[in-house]
Amino acid sequence: MTSLNFKVAPAVQATEAPPIPKAQAWGCQYVPSPSAPLLDLSQGVPRAAPHPNVLAALSKVASDPQAARYGPILGEPGLRQALAEEIKVQYHVSGQGVTFEDVAITTGCNMAFLSLLMTLCPPGKSSVLLPLPAYFNHTMSLSLQDVKPVYVLCEPDNMLKASLPSARSYLASLRKGNGDRREPRMIVLVSPSNPTGTVYTNEEIKQWYDLAREYKVALVLDETYRDFVEGESGQRGLPHRLFEEPDWRSTLVSLGSFSKGYRIPGHRLGSIIASPELLQHITTICDCMQICPPRPPQIALTPLLPSLRPDLFAASSQLSHRRHLFETTVNAIPGWEVISSGGFFAYVQFPEDYIYASSILGLKRKKLGSEDVARVLALRCGVVTLPGSFFMPPLADDEQWDDILNGETLRQDKWLRFAVANVEDDVILSLGPRLKLMNKIMGVDNEGVAS
Amino acid sequence: MTSLNFKVAPAVQATEAPPIPKAQAWGCQYVPSPSAPLLDLSQGVPRAAPHPNVLAALSKVASDPQAARYGPILGEPGLRQALAEEIKVQYHVSGQGVTFEDVAITTGCNMAFLSLLMTLCPPGKSSVLLPLPAYFNHTMSLSLQDVKPVYVLCEPDNMLKASLPSARSYLASLRKGNGDRREPRMIVLVSPSNPTGTVYTNEEIKQWYDLAREYKVALVLDETYRDFVEGESGQRGLPHRLFEEPDWRSTLVSLGSFSKGYRIPGHRLGSIIASPELLQHITTICDCMQICPPRPPQIALTPLLPSLRPDLFAASSQLSHRRHLFETTVNAIPGWEVISSGGFFAYVQFPEDYIYASSILGLKRKKLGSEDVARVLALRCGVVTLPGSFFMPPLADDEQWDDILNGETLRQDKWLRFAVANVEDDVILSLGPRLKLMNKIMGVDNEGVAS
Repeated sequence: MTSLNFKVAPAVQATEAPPIPKAQAWGCQYVPSPSAPLLDLSQGVPRAAPHPNVLAALSKVASDPQAARYGPILGEPGLRQALAEEIKVQYHVSGQGVTFEDVAITTGCNMAFLSLLMTLCPPGKSSVLLPLPAYFNHTMSLSLQDVKPVYVLCEPDNMLKASLPSARSYLASLRKGNGDRREPRMIVLVSPSNPTGTVYTNEEIKQWYDLAREYKVALVLDETYRDFVEGESGQRGLPHRLFEEPDWRSTLVSLGSFSKGYRIPGHRLGSIIASPELLQHITTICDCMQICPPRPPQIALTPLLPSLRPDLFAASSQLSHRRHLFETTVNAIPGWEVISSGGFFAYVQFPEDYIYASSILGLKRKKLGSEDVARVLALRCGVVTLPGSFFMPPLADDEQWDDILNGETLRQDKWLRFAVANVEDDVILSLGPRLKLMNKIMGVDNEGVAS
Repeated sequence: MTSLNFKVAPAVQATEAPPIPKAQAWGCQYVPSPSAPLLDLSQGVPRAAPHPNVLAALSKVASDPQAARYGPILGEPGLRQALAEEIKVQYHVSGQGVTFEDVAITTGCNMAFLSLLMTLCPPGKSSVLLPLPAYFNHTMSLSLQDVKPVYVLCEPDNMLKASLPSARSYLASLRKGNGDRREPRMIVLVSPSNPTGTVYTNEEIKQWYDLAREYKVALVLDETYRDFVEGESGQRGLPHRLFEEPDWRSTLVSLGSFSKGYRIPGHRLGSIIASPELLQHITTICDCMQICPPRPPQIALTPLLPSLRPDLFAASSQLSHRRHLFETTVNAIPGWEVISSGGFFAYVQFPEDYIYASSILGLKRKKLGSEDVARVLALRCGVVTLPGSFFMPPLADDEQWDDILNGETLRQDKWLRFAVANVEDDVILSLGPRLKLMNKIMGVDNEGVAS
């Protein structure tokens, strides 16, 4: 029964609620103790404070009345220029590969994605190709705008990567006039992936780029976690080499964030790197959405970016170390297995037996899913994660998972996403006893493991 | 010829570009001198710096690593509570009239409007009633989302107020099944108005509220400039009394901004006051659009709001004085007339003869419009304003201004919006000589006026 005397748009009603508050609410029901505090590994949040120079600059600029005034719609020219320089360094691009005119600053990377979606995809008439599991704010944005998601099949030998032949065959069948009349407008890849941490190689990304070019759709790379691509011998990795393509602006749109690398999510800064022609359209949307991005953090960061490179490198290699520690810790617990990790995340399979533990929990239903498991892990063991089901959006009435996913893959719903970046090494180590406690609760033998 | 290998959505292509940069570009072509600097009265920007206590708090919070982390989607509970208290004081509401659960914080008021529009209005299937002249970011947002604007006729005796009978007759005809099949979802009023400064009285707003209730649409009040409603004897005015209606949540949505009253537009904070049921849907959109509003300014403002009331009162009465000074100054110039003022703005009619000054400017077309006049005023006299045409959106192919506007009214396109709040009193006084210079350029006699 509604208390409203007016209607809410059907697409909004049909969109699932934001999932992170739901997971965090489970954590609120946990009773912590000094020796077993609540561990929140749900939202991807950098654990460490921003660099001291960043904090000092933020503080200084925030006291400046000039910074309290409106700025340009697409962000401060100085920051656009500075980010273009960082991109050139990080992607090994020379010359005019990326200039400040290719860069827009947004109020976070979610806004970057939504504004791009609105720019390219007419509601009710278009579709977007993206792999599963998918970042929930992407699928929620599609749902809100009534843009159809087309889930790309996994590769047969790798459930964590989208299959290019599958996407090609879908696009080819559309071209022949088969199937859906909703026109595909973009292919979206998140690399390193949210939620799985999977990193697409440069060769793979180049193949997706060629496919997008061939079928005249945009290739949208969400590179929120690009600062955490592992390179060789401790170097930061090269996310891809597309910015070296002379004609990259015709096809590629790269989304980024200042939240993860510079550890300032609360200050809300993201970016779009794209053709200036596209950015002109995005300007119109951003004017209606943000007028300008928050100005003080833009002004504060501008002169600092080059000096923060060593800090980014250090954070990246520290996180790489932490992911390895996490793998060792979790894989040592009976039944638990890290199946993928990268960027801020690890994607973890919980013990098979959990699925049949409903009687232990006093539940009536026969099989448990990842949401049940994540809930118990939070409530009883104080470890908040996101269930894999949060990254598997509800299907339309005429869709079947069997048609979308390869046999024994994602349908099993037996994964959890751990945001490994959220905590220090000692907390990673303390996950061992927590997962053993969970095994105990769920009736799984911890035999052979020191307690 | 496009350089893009993918398509841009038709609604985005059809939406006019943001107008303020266009006006500011005219100003950039002016050659200033020490005695005649550029005067930018285009964007509505508070002239004064934020209160010193606000600047100090912003600076302190920005240095806190905790404030750099993500916050709740709809804003800090503390700020939501504090704003609810301010609303109760400003609108003379007691008890549970407005609580923190009715308040959402957004990244500025444009985002508040766009997120609400997305929540209520299905693209391609709905319409919104709003008066002309209209705030351009509202009409741009409608255009981007393919929501049809229905322009409400002016009152016959007052071209600056929307006619309630006209709106009622439109809604009644739809109910009878006549005309457009796009379903009206909201009525939007901006009070004090942007661009005209017009303030709707409480009685008028109550009538619009009753109309909205009767036809089951939302009444959306954009109250960005509510802190600048003139009251009696120097008090801040009461914008309306709708929050005292026991059932206001069923129909009313009030949008606000921290940018104008607290003078921090660059920090990007706005608000929505509405039913918690509606805010639950808006949470979904805000999660995809902002994740959370910028956190440091929220934390900084929370404890300060009550202490800033005297500062708001002072700013409001200072601005009221400035508007009167503006009226006296401008009305003294031959042919110029302030036809309305309130909030940050004055809506000004320029001399009739300007319309026929095309030969003086060496232009081929017969009649000049407000955009030509605003351009010359900026380029030659260094005074940047926004032409009235910026608030008269392009019509659909099947629409005629004659059907929309009453006879000799807005079609004449002979107005400029001055953002009076942008400058100090001495600048207001210096507008006299600038407008006389403009008269001279445009061939209008300044006789009888001291130069």
